[in-house]
Amino acid sequence: MAETTITPRAKDYNEWYLDVIAAAELSDYSPVKGCLVLRPHGYAVWDLMRGELDQRFRDTGHVNAYFPLLIPMSFLSKEAEHVEGFAKECAVVTHHRLRAVPGGTGVEPDPAAKLEEPLVIRPTSETIIWHMYGKWIQSHRDLPILINQWANVVRWEMKTRPFLRTTEFLWQEGHTAHASSQEAVEETQKMLRVYEDFAVNVMATPVIPGIKSASERFAGAVETMCIEAMMQNGWALQAGTSHFLGQNFAKAFDVSFTSDAGVREHVWATSWGVSTRLVGALIMTHSDDTGLILPPALAPIQVVITPIWKGESEKEGAIAYADKVAAALKPLRVKVDTRDSLKPGAKYFEWERKGVPLRLEIGPRDMAQNSVFAAPRTGGGKFGIPVDENLKSTVEAKLAEIQATLYQRACERLAARTFRVDTYAEFKERIEEGGFFLVNWCDDAANEATIKEETKATIRCYPLDGQTPTGTCFFSGRPATHVALFARAY
Amino acid sequence: MAETTITPRAKDYNEWYLDVIAAAELSDYSPVKGCLVLRPHGYAVWDLMRGELDQRFRDTGHVNAYFPLLIPMSFLSKEAEHVEGFAKECAVVTHHRLRAVPGGTGVEPDPAAKLEEPLVIRPTSETIIWHMYGKWIQSHRDLPILINQWANVVRWEMKTRPFLRTTEFLWQEGHTAHASSQEAVEETQKMLRVYEDFAVNVMATPVIPGIKSASERFAGAVETMCIEAMMQNGWALQAGTSHFLGQNFAKAFDVSFTSDAGVREHVWATSWGVSTRLVGALIMTHSDDTGLILPPALAPIQVVITPIWKGESEKEGAIAYADKVAAALKPLRVKVDTRDSLKPGAKYFEWERKGVPLRLEIGPRDMAQNSVFAAPRTGGGKFGIPVDENLKSTVEAKLAEIQATLYQRACERLAARTFRVDTYAEFKERIEEGGFFLVNWCDDAANEATIKEETKATIRCYPLDGQTPTGTCFFSGRPATHVALFARAY
Repeated sequence: MAETTITPRAKDYNEWYLDVIAAAELSDYSPVKGCLVLRPHGYAVWDLMRGELDQRFRDTGHVNAYFPLLIPMSFLSKEAEHVEGFAKECAVVTHHRLRAVPGGTGVEPDPAAKLEEPLVIRPTSETIIWHMYGKWIQSHRDLPILINQWANVVRWEMKTRPFLRTTEFLWQEGHTAHASSQEAVEETQKMLRVYEDFAVNVMATPVIPGIKSASERFAGAVETMCIEAMMQNGWALQAGTSHFLGQNFAKAFDVSFTSDAGVREHVWATSWGVSTRLVGALIMTHSDDTGLILPPALAPIQVVITPIWKGESEKEGAIAYADKVAAALKPLRVKVDTRDSLKPGAKYFEWERKGVPLRLEIGPRDMAQNSVFAAPRTGGGKFGIPVDENLKSTVEAKLAEIQATLYQRACERLAARTFRVDTYAEFKERIEEGGFFLVNWCDDAANEATIKEETKATIRCYPLDGQTPTGTCFFSGRPATHVALFARAY
Repeated sequence: MAETTITPRAKDYNEWYLDVIAAAELSDYSPVKGCLVLRPHGYAVWDLMRGELDQRFRDTGHVNAYFPLLIPMSFLSKEAEHVEGFAKECAVVTHHRLRAVPGGTGVEPDPAAKLEEPLVIRPTSETIIWHMYGKWIQSHRDLPILINQWANVVRWEMKTRPFLRTTEFLWQEGHTAHASSQEAVEETQKMLRVYEDFAVNVMATPVIPGIKSASERFAGAVETMCIEAMMQNGWALQAGTSHFLGQNFAKAFDVSFTSDAGVREHVWATSWGVSTRLVGALIMTHSDDTGLILPPALAPIQVVITPIWKGESEKEGAIAYADKVAAALKPLRVKVDTRDSLKPGAKYFEWERKGVPLRLEIGPRDMAQNSVFAAPRTGGGKFGIPVDENLKSTVEAKLAEIQATLYQRACERLAARTFRVDTYAEFKERIEEGGFFLVNWCDDAANEATIKEETKATIRCYPLDGQTPTGTCFFSGRPATHVALFARAY
C-alpha cells in the first residue's frame, strides 16, 4: 500500500489527525457512509480500554448484561425529550426479508415482508432497558439494579470523523435503578469519578469534570455530568457522560416499587457511557508529527524489539537473543520484529508511527555487551540497558516514566491554554486560537445560543472542582450564577 | 417475582429447558419478537466463554477487529449461493430518520429520509469483510490475514428458542485470507480442533467433529466442518462450524494478490464461528430436574459460601468467618451470601437452580471445628473440609473433580445413545427415541432429503475420526461412500 505522509499539525490539524490514523492502521473507511472499520491495531486499543473500564465497573458493584439491538419505534416516543433528541438520527428497519428483483437482477426489500411496526436500531438503550426493568422491579428488595452493557449503537450522522463522530460506534452504557433520588445522584457522581480516574491514570489525559448546562443535557436527563479533555489544538472533547435521569424513564415506562414503608413509588435512574471516541481523544492528546503515540497502559505493543543482523550467519543468534529478552519481559506486551523484508530504519519508522512506547534495538555490539539499546517514543535520547536480572524492572520503570511524561505534557498544555476572561469582547477575540475559557456566567439559554452562533463555542461544563462564581456575568453583566467553561468542541 | 417450577425432563423436555433458564435468570423475552435479553447471570457465562475462546484465538495467531453492522444490500448478491442462503432472513434498513406523524401522535419513518440503497443488518460478515480485504491485499506479503470479530448478528427467525435460535445473537466470526488452498484448508481444520478443545476442556461437552454434507453446507462454502454435541434428549446440536470458502468470496469481490512468482491469483478464504447458542448447549448438556448445572470453568460463581446464624449476636462472627474463607480461596470466583431476607434452605435452593458447582455451608458447628461443610452441585453427599493451609487446593481439586464428573457423565450419555444401524427400517423405528445413528451411506442429496422428510433427521456430519465406510448404503443399497451420523437436531 502507498505510504501515508503525515501532515504536520501546524499546517493542518485535521489532516494530521486523519494521517496519523491511516499511518498507524487504526481504522479504515467502509462502503457504508459514516461507518468505520476498526482495524486490528485500533480495535486492540479499544479492547484494552474495555478491559480497564470493565474492571472498574465490577469493582464498583456493576454486572454486565445484553439487551436487544432493535427497539420498537413506539418506545422512543414514550419519553418526550428523548424522542426529540434521537428521532432525527435513527436507522429504521422496515422489512425482514429480501427478494429477487422481479424480472431484473439483484435483490430488493420484499413488500410481503414489511413489519407491522418498524424497529429502530438502538441509538442508546434507555427505552428498551426500562421496559425490561418494569418486568424485574416489584419491591425495594429488587433494587438497586446496577447493570452495564457493552454494545454497538447507531446514530445517523451527516458529518462524520473517524472515532470522534461515526454512524455506528462501540460503547458501554450503564443503566442503574435506585430506590431514592439521593442514591441515584450518588451513583451519577461516582461513575463520573470512575471515568475521571480512567482518563487520568490509564489514558494519561487530564480532564475537567463538570455539569452540563440545560441545553447540552442528554435528552431525557435531569442532569448530565461530563468530563472534558483538551485536544492539542485547544478544542474540547467530551470524554464521558453520566446522567441523573430522575424518574423520567420510570414514569414513561411505569416502573415503580413498593418501598420499605409499603408505599408505591417510581424508581430513580442513572445512565452513563463512554465510546470508541475515546480512541480519537487518545490519538489527539498524545501523538506528534511523526505519528501515533500511545501511553503504555493502552498500547497493544508496549515494547518492540528489533534485532539487527547482517546476513544469514548472524540472523539466528540475533533472533535468539531478542527472544530471550522478550521472554524475560513477560507479561509485558512485547513484539519481536523478525521480518527479513524491511531494513532496521524502516522498522523503526513503522513502529514509531504505530505509537509503540518503547523500542529495544539489538545489534552485534549490544549482544557483545549483553545489553539492549532503548529508544522511548517520547524522545529524550537513546540509552543502553544491561540484560541482567533487573531488565524487567528497568523496562517497567521506563514505561511508567513514559506514561507519566505523557500525562505531564498533557497537563502542561491544559494549564497553558486555560484562560480566565472577563469580557465577551476579549473572549471573541481569543476563542479563534483555541483553548478553555473560564468565565463568570449567569445561566441563560438564549445568551448561550447567541454565543454559540457568534463564536461556535459552547459551554462544555460548569466545572465541579474549585470554582465559585463571583461578580457579574461576562456576557450579560447580571450577577453570576456559575463559572462556565467555554470552548470549541469536537 | 413468582417462583418458577421446573418441569421434569421426563415430562416435557422443552418445558424443562425453558424453566431452567427462567429459574436461573439466564435470559428473558424482549418486546421484539425473537430477540432475547441476556440477563447478568446468562451474559456472564457467555463472557467466560468469550474469554476462553479469545485466548485460544490469540494463541493460534489471530487478532480481533471490528467491521460495520450495516451492509449495502447489493453486497449480498455478489456471491450467488450466499444471497440464496441469507436474503430470506435479513433485517432491512430503509430510512435514516423518524418524524412526528403529521396531525397524529407518535413517530413514523420520514419519507424524506429514505435511503438510496437499503442496508441490511449483517447476518454474517463475509461480504463486507471481503470488500475490505480487497483494499488491504495486494501482494503475498499482505497474507495471511488472520482476523476474528466479536459481534452481534441478525437473522430473522420465525420460530425461536432462547439461546438456540434467536433473531439477534452474539457470536464471533473468524475470517482469514491465505495465499494457497492448502493453507486455508489447514486453517479450517485447525479452528475446528480449537472448537473441539474448547467444548471438551471448558464446556465439559464431548463432540463429534466432522464434515457437513453438501446440502447442510454454509451458503458460499466449498466445505463446512462442524462439531456436533448430543443433548440429554438424544438430539444433536451443532456447536461450531469452520468453513473452507475456496476462492468464492475472493472472486465475488475480486480480491487477488501477486504471488512470490509474480503471478496474479485469487485469495483463498476460511470463516468460522460459534455463538451464544453454546450457552443453550451448556444448559442442555449438564442440567438436571433441580435446575442449572454449570461446569466450574464457565461458572460466574464457582463457590457460594452460605454462613448460617441465629440472631444478630451470631451474625457478625459468621460473616467474618465466611469472608475469611472467601479471601483464602482467591482468585476463584466466590460469593458470600449474607442476605438476611432468606433462610439457609431458600438460599441453597436458589444457588442450586443457578448452577453454582460448589456450596460451602458454615454453621456454628463448622466454625467450632474450624471447617466448612461442602455440597457439590453434582451430588454424591456433603462432607467437611478443614479450614487450614490446604483449603484452597482442596476446593480447587473438588472443582476439577466436578468438571471431570460432568464431562464423564456427558461422555457416557453420548456413548450409550450412539448406535450403528444397518437398515433404514431399523433407523425409522429407533429415531423416535433420539440418539446418534451411524450408518453406511452413499452420498446422494435426493435420498438425504427423503430421509429428512420421512424422519425429521438430518446428516449432522461425516465424522472425521475413526470411521471408514464399508459395504452398502443403509438406504440405497449402493456401495457406501461415507459413514454418516444422522440425528434429529436443534
